[in-house]
Amino acid sequence: MEQIERLQRTIRFAAGTEPAELLLVNARLVDLLSGEIYPADVALADGLVVGIGDGGSVSYPAKERIDLGGSFLAPGFLDAHVHVESSMVAPAEFARAVVPRGTTTVISDPHEIANVLGLEGIRFMLECAKGSPLSMFVMAPSCVPATAMSSSGAALDAVDLASFRTSPWVLGLAEVMNFPGVVGGDPEVLAKLVAFADRPLDGHAPGLSGRALAAYVASGIGSDHESTTIDEAREKLRLGMTIFLREATNAKNLRTLLPLVTAANQHRFCLCTDDRQPADLLDDGHIDHLVRLAIAGGVDPIVALRMASWNTAHHFRLHDRGAITPGRRADLVVFDDLRAPRPRLVFRRGQLVARDGEALVAAPKQAARLRGTMNVDWSAIDFAIPAEGRRLRAIGAIPDQLVSRHLVEEARIEDGVAAADPARDLLKMAVIERHHGSGGMGKGFVKGFGLGQGALASSVAHDHHNLVVIGADDPSMATAARRAAALGGGLVVAAGERVLAEVPLSLGGLMSDRPIEEVRRELDRALVAAGELGSTLHDPFMAMSFLALEVIPSLKLTDRGLVDVDRFELVPLWVE
Amino acid sequence: MEQIERLQRTIRFAAGTEPAELLLVNARLVDLLSGEIYPADVALADGLVVGIGDGGSVSYPAKERIDLGGSFLAPGFLDAHVHVESSMVAPAEFARAVVPRGTTTVISDPHEIANVLGLEGIRFMLECAKGSPLSMFVMAPSCVPATAMSSSGAALDAVDLASFRTSPWVLGLAEVMNFPGVVGGDPEVLAKLVAFADRPLDGHAPGLSGRALAAYVASGIGSDHESTTIDEAREKLRLGMTIFLREATNAKNLRTLLPLVTAANQHRFCLCTDDRQPADLLDDGHIDHLVRLAIAGGVDPIVALRMASWNTAHHFRLHDRGAITPGRRADLVVFDDLRAPRPRLVFRRGQLVARDGEALVAAPKQAARLRGTMNVDWSAIDFAIPAEGRRLRAIGAIPDQLVSRHLVEEARIEDGVAAADPARDLLKMAVIERHHGSGGMGKGFVKGFGLGQGALASSVAHDHHNLVVIGADDPSMATAARRAAALGGGLVVAAGERVLAEVPLSLGGLMSDRPIEEVRRELDRALVAAGELGSTLHDPFMAMSFLALEVIPSLKLTDRGLVDVDRFELVPLWVE
Repeated sequence: MEQIERLQRTIRFAAGTEPAELLLVNARLVDLLSGEIYPADVALADGLVVGIGDGGSVSYPAKERIDLGGSFLAPGFLDAHVHVESSMVAPAEFARAVVPRGTTTVISDPHEIANVLGLEGIRFMLECAKGSPLSMFVMAPSCVPATAMSSSGAALDAVDLASFRTSPWVLGLAEVMNFPGVVGGDPEVLAKLVAFADRPLDGHAPGLSGRALAAYVASGIGSDHESTTIDEAREKLRLGMTIFLREATNAKNLRTLLPLVTAANQHRFCLCTDDRQPADLLDDGHIDHLVRLAIAGGVDPIVALRMASWNTAHHFRLHDRGAITPGRRADLVVFDDLRAPRPRLVFRRGQLVARDGEALVAAPKQAARLRGTMNVDWSAIDFAIPAEGRRLRAIGAIPDQLVSRHLVEEARIEDGVAAADPARDLLKMAVIERHHGSGGMGKGFVKGFGLGQGALASSVAHDHHNLVVIGADDPSMATAARRAAALGGGLVVAAGERVLAEVPLSLGGLMSDRPIEEVRRELDRALVAAGELGSTLHDPFMAMSFLALEVIPSLKLTDRGLVDVDRFELVPLWVE
Repeated sequence: MEQIERLQRTIRFAAGTEPAELLLVNARLVDLLSGEIYPADVALADGLVVGIGDGGSVSYPAKERIDLGGSFLAPGFLDAHVHVESSMVAPAEFARAVVPRGTTTVISDPHEIANVLGLEGIRFMLECAKGSPLSMFVMAPSCVPATAMSSSGAALDAVDLASFRTSPWVLGLAEVMNFPGVVGGDPEVLAKLVAFADRPLDGHAPGLSGRALAAYVASGIGSDHESTTIDEAREKLRLGMTIFLREATNAKNLRTLLPLVTAANQHRFCLCTDDRQPADLLDDGHIDHLVRLAIAGGVDPIVALRMASWNTAHHFRLHDRGAITPGRRADLVVFDDLRAPRPRLVFRRGQLVARDGEALVAAPKQAARLRGTMNVDWSAIDFAIPAEGRRLRAIGAIPDQLVSRHLVEEARIEDGVAAADPARDLLKMAVIERHHGSGGMGKGFVKGFGLGQGALASSVAHDHHNLVVIGADDPSMATAARRAAALGGGLVVAAGERVLAEVPLSLGGLMSDRPIEEVRRELDRALVAAGELGSTLHDPFMAMSFLALEVIPSLKLTDRGLVDVDRFELVPLWVE
């Protein structure tokens, strides 16, 4: 009965027999359904668009009016795939950063926090998003843990994931990164697909092609955001995948793929950010940035806005949003330049939530709490590497790439242990298990960081997020690692016994509980400090975080040891 | 576990590690997703498309091959809105008629049979569709009965309709014809919308505009197939409705609306037939006919095919069909002329089900049975109309239109009763309640049929489907009516005591249990017989069937009497 009364009320608003709460007059309505832009007055009530006036024969009574002065009015933006954790701030703070940019809905994959805290981590994200001016939907993380060659904080099987099916905020299964498992018919992987067979299943299939790609698609996976070439994306498009055009901090594919978008296939593309760091969110923006890039790249503005809104809503079966029509949510953006949209007003469920890039609603207090996640058995931790040969494997970091080289180097042996050799840019690296206090630790060497002294530590280390440390000497490494643990997680720069800079990330060792501007300043300072120690990389912390990711070639280090990713197995440090 | 094993099998077929059942080689694949046409080999297994070979680096092993010789291969057609009953044959026979035309899925509204037999009628349709080579989905009929001014065989409220929610074949709520009820907030109407709020809700809003249309749309109704002008359809499109382009036997709107379709809005249109009679189905075709009309009208063939397939599948959230991609159903059509597609092969779930316009699978035996529905208390039936004045209201039939005129005529009084006056084309009309044997009967007069003698009777009378009779004299009317009842329903032409022609429709008085070709021949003969009696109308039976429909202006006759539709109330026969 309540539903009927609500519907009656909506109908009265739409019929104009009851005055709307707010009338946006003098708008140029960007109609993503008809593909037109026309003058309109838009009536809002009860969080919904209730009517469209034409300034002539169709008009709406309203209690309040805002004159948009001929500005463009479009539906709010959606991010088709984002790891909120990569913003290094909690969901409410993330919302404060992206809502003023026009993003009113995100489809998030809480894969990082789930690797640390499992179901508890996912619940935390959902809980944090409550009351924020952003609809944060969740795709159930499909790959926790990524492999058995590292130690995650949690493991989620199909039964665990299915427990989220009843949440209205959980839409489907997040990017299935284990594509060999899908193509090989691994029953544990397929059980997860089956658990969400009637929902959107997101893909992640870099470079997959031909029959292997067909097998991946035949499993029911319907999207991909990993294409790096036009040919790769075209094949996926033809095989039925929705293509998410990605512009992340560390993976920028949008401009490369834009030429594939045509009038005939425009409905098959969505925009996504995947991972964006604080500085990028604050300086460039969020989905609005991608819209501007697309338009600058030659895409029709209406098509760009469609990829930013309707297409994504439609793909994820969010039938209540993505267009400005009676009965749909009043999630709206107002901007003045159709060639470079910058939202000057953002409405969410009919409320003005941002103006001129600033959020107007206070981020809600952090409601949910998380337990500490830095559980290291320091008595078992020893950075020394006994000399067991003359030549050893070393990871070769490549600037701005996630892949690494598999090198073999002469060891520098001192007092029976293998030491770093900064003169040759051969640094020590350690990955310390930090979830269960197991005392597990992988040790190795890395080239390409350039540190002449000191050490860097980070609790952000994809995907298992153990504690990764790179340094020129053991005391610096110990200082950095212990400080990161003492902070409850974070990024640390140290030299000898001194901590030079730090970014506390107390929420799962991944996110800060403070404002994004503050996190960004701390991160900037940490990068400067790393540079002063000799770091030659644009962002050594991000580089570190991927040197522990054992699913991207060629040589990586986890808490269980060195992984030859090409052979997909653990290998010894010493080669002779 | 069974689902996982099935998925493993599909993946093996797609990966080519297990030979496909059938490979369609040398096809020109019409890709409705990318909007391209390209050469391809398509592998089928387990009823699904499992892989797309390119004739080069990607190839598929298969047990059997069919060389398509460069023919076009497109996904099977879907009818977005059809009353199967209008074909006058049972679902399996309807399937035999439309599947060879390339239609592999229909979204049906069993509104007619529901008005006769309620839930039992809907179950009958669902039961009959089993095992036929057609996916017949059902939308729950929303308007049974249409009004309280006629007697239907059944009434379905929200609770009745909701009982079908769990059927996998029931997709949503069928056309909500009671638009005044929606706009007026009628709680009984809204209860039906609420019962299907998370499903597609089909609309029916002829001429609705402005705020009333906004109110209708705000209720959640998402489609309309009643637009007769470009302006009307454009307004509905802009307000968020999916536009179904209709080409019915008695309502041809497709060509008028085609100019509205553009590259920018093409995804917002579907094709539907609504009501098509046997002769139209056999002579012109089904959705294939609409595709040809659209292309002839200037629509790009790929867009026309998209409206016939992908768009409809997508609108109704049938994620398993509408495109040729791995994992989707192998519902396919093969044709040679892209400018005028005529399916020469039709596959359904990977089986060849039609070739050169002929079905290759036998229609399954009529599994379900229906009780007789012609329940007339003949003792209460008297065609005589006592003279109670000098001038009376008469219905003015208008050729090829559903609306009628509200006339006032001098009565021809004989022996104290009002008689027909064929010389002035003033015929008698009766509508006899036939569902409950109530003895109810409405009596009146009609102009425009031209019968010089004899009578016509029909158990098809929208929407209540009582027994309608039009005649030049009472004995002929009695003969026709009694014969129609004796047949268990049907169309009858009679003169005096002689039956001249008949079309038995024993299934609910709406459908025949025999082949469509036979029904068509009988109907042709009945039309000839009616013509020989003087009928001047193209199809007097169809005209009759709408003269009893009390929701279309201006004057109509139901079993309860004359209805002034403009005033929406029962009115007396005599005006003075």
